[in-house]
Amino acid sequence: MKAEIVATGTELLLGETLNTSAHYLTGKMSSLGIEVDYHTTVGDNPERLEQVLRQGIGRSDLLITTGGLGPTADDLTKELVAKVLNLKMELDTSSLDQIKQFFGRRKAPMPLSNEKQAYFPKGSKILPNPIGTAPGAIIETMGKTVIILPGPPFEMRPMFDNFAWPELQRILGPQSERMNERVLKVFGMGESAIEEVLGELMSLPNLTMALLAKRAEMHIRLVARSTETKSGEAKEALKRAEEEIRRRLGDKVFGCDQETMIGIVGQTLINKHLTIATAESCTGGLLGAALTQEPGSSDFYLGGVVSYSNSLKKGILGVREETLNTFGAVSEEVAIEMAEGIRSKTGSDLAISTTGIAGPGGGSDKKPVGLVFVGFATPEGVHAEKFQFYGERESVRQLTVQAALNGVRQHILSSERRQQSGDG
Amino acid sequence: MKAEIVATGTELLLGETLNTSAHYLTGKMSSLGIEVDYHTTVGDNPERLEQVLRQGIGRSDLLITTGGLGPTADDLTKELVAKVLNLKMELDTSSLDQIKQFFGRRKAPMPLSNEKQAYFPKGSKILPNPIGTAPGAIIETMGKTVIILPGPPFEMRPMFDNFAWPELQRILGPQSERMNERVLKVFGMGESAIEEVLGELMSLPNLTMALLAKRAEMHIRLVARSTETKSGEAKEALKRAEEEIRRRLGDKVFGCDQETMIGIVGQTLINKHLTIATAESCTGGLLGAALTQEPGSSDFYLGGVVSYSNSLKKGILGVREETLNTFGAVSEEVAIEMAEGIRSKTGSDLAISTTGIAGPGGGSDKKPVGLVFVGFATPEGVHAEKFQFYGERESVRQLTVQAALNGVRQHILSSERRQQSGDG
Repeated sequence: MKAEIVATGTELLLGETLNTSAHYLTGKMSSLGIEVDYHTTVGDNPERLEQVLRQGIGRSDLLITTGGLGPTADDLTKELVAKVLNLKMELDTSSLDQIKQFFGRRKAPMPLSNEKQAYFPKGSKILPNPIGTAPGAIIETMGKTVIILPGPPFEMRPMFDNFAWPELQRILGPQSERMNERVLKVFGMGESAIEEVLGELMSLPNLTMALLAKRAEMHIRLVARSTETKSGEAKEALKRAEEEIRRRLGDKVFGCDQETMIGIVGQTLINKHLTIATAESCTGGLLGAALTQEPGSSDFYLGGVVSYSNSLKKGILGVREETLNTFGAVSEEVAIEMAEGIRSKTGSDLAISTTGIAGPGGGSDKKPVGLVFVGFATPEGVHAEKFQFYGERESVRQLTVQAALNGVRQHILSSERRQQSGDG
Repeated sequence: MKAEIVATGTELLLGETLNTSAHYLTGKMSSLGIEVDYHTTVGDNPERLEQVLRQGIGRSDLLITTGGLGPTADDLTKELVAKVLNLKMELDTSSLDQIKQFFGRRKAPMPLSNEKQAYFPKGSKILPNPIGTAPGAIIETMGKTVIILPGPPFEMRPMFDNFAWPELQRILGPQSERMNERVLKVFGMGESAIEEVLGELMSLPNLTMALLAKRAEMHIRLVARSTETKSGEAKEALKRAEEEIRRRLGDKVFGCDQETMIGIVGQTLINKHLTIATAESCTGGLLGAALTQEPGSSDFYLGGVVSYSNSLKKGILGVREETLNTFGAVSEEVAIEMAEGIRSKTGSDLAISTTGIAGPGGGSDKKPVGLVFVGFATPEGVHAEKFQFYGERESVRQLTVQAALNGVRQHILSSERRQQSGDG
């Protein structure tokens, strides 16, 4: 199946908005084994948009559009798809009800213009939009499939994942070639170091392997192609490769596929019935924000202190004046006292602290920008780890959060090992 | 002048690489007053790439390509541009020398395949590549301009800025129309509400106005076109429109152009010599993270408490057990006691608190998901504002941060007004 993606929106052609949707959708097509031949971006201009839609529907089996579903007169995607496919526009009363409810929840009457959002090309299957007022649609006609999605990525993504994806799977059927993929996520090793350790694994005959550098982690992406009926072999090849990679990289592999560092740490804390607290300086609240990102975080996260000023380090956390004066706020000693302080203040099982120089200013020869100490206080004792990160302020802060979470993960792994070997 | 941008590279169609180049170039075209009508991305497939180039050269005055300049057989951009324009490929000996020098600096002989990178369509003006081995080119023929740039953004951007930009300015001449633009940023009003208030302003004859919904704010983008010599009039039209919009929307307009909510709030706090502290529940640290995003934040941000659990609300912030029991953790009363608590604990001038139901669970009929209270403690007193946000967990949290920052901004604005009118 050959596909193309058409984004409409004048803001995309003014350099205001980056088209992340084409990137997102093309990755999804790739996993489904659908070849994407073109991305096209076109403004909210009826003639040009119509011409692009006509060309796309002519040359591709699947056309996915994003944008142009708003209530205003220049939002024309559905209308022009209908024109190109020779379909009438019809009111979908259930969509209209939902749009009215959307405004009802906001205690506002629905503006008349929004009624337009409940009209679709005849024969459309509606893709609901729980977040906004623009439902999407999927149309199958004359051997072609058109999927119409809204422009804002936070509306488009859940609509695609929850409603369009299953439709595509149905349309493809069991005999189409899929990508069987596995992404292994690594923290604490760079691209070349991983390449060196993996060596000949990088070019196995039956699967492709690619390294992708993300902001605070590395991803190893394994892909083996097969039809759904022969997916057993492909999955076996993936499994063998994964085992070998994990054997070589050990604890550096922290997760796979949709797993995130915070997801793994949170789940582990819940499973072990452990609570955690934070004392943050250079991360300014980002670590707490990460720990509370997923629902259910109140089961393990008690809270913390953002001790951005020294007076809070002393006043709430009980860091000693002497320690601050002797070693400075960015030091192993202060990281340790911060972690101890928040642990005793909150009565949590574990506590983590961060102190560092996020930059761009504030660095010195002895304490350069990117120097970070992460403190860990646990029932078994307290210690701090030193890191030297590189990059801009936000990277240093994100890397610090990731290092702190990874430290928690490794602490729990090693206490497990001690218990298993009978030392604990 | 009408332009389009064509990116070639199979990696862009696999979801591995995000096409940031089209976004970058389109912003540059926008400032030059060049209308970009299309972005197209196509793989390294000779037939499809040729067809896209032919169509682009046919319908646009200016075609900019990125990618397909590598040494391998599937890098075909220059060859296919030559084919479409009926031009021969010719060796540029000075480019060849530079490619050889590039390898020389790396103490490696130039692979034969790289010679290909020194061939260009006849009549090309070469755009040097100081970073890589792929020079670009600009071709002016039969009233059309084609600019050929390399794919990697770190090679493309300096080549465009240093070599292609001056060529475009020359081609456009002093009488060409440029864009004069202004972006006004709004918090606390939705798209349709703004449209209603702006009414006839949305369609003034001498400028275009567009509304863009961002996650936690709305942008109003004003554009007036003019030649460089007549830019005074255009700027005057922008100024008049801006004044009228600000008059109608009042304080809802929080900034413009590159300004951000946190940037404005931070700068205002610094100017007024005010310090601030935070007590966060539902935002879990995001508010502190926002306040510390920019360097220099230690001048106004003292720190705060993430009181995710009730025990921390009581223990560190001094929220009364009775208040929690009577009104619940998500209540106006608790927001007020949290803000008061952190203000007296830190001695800050201002304090903000957040408590709410970020979801997706935890909602009830009386306290639905998205219900948030933001508390403000200031020298003039303490109060809390109630918000009902919609969307997923992360949206609710981001909106809460923005609402809290906006509250600080509005507090400072209104104390200024009180002082000016002699009330304070």
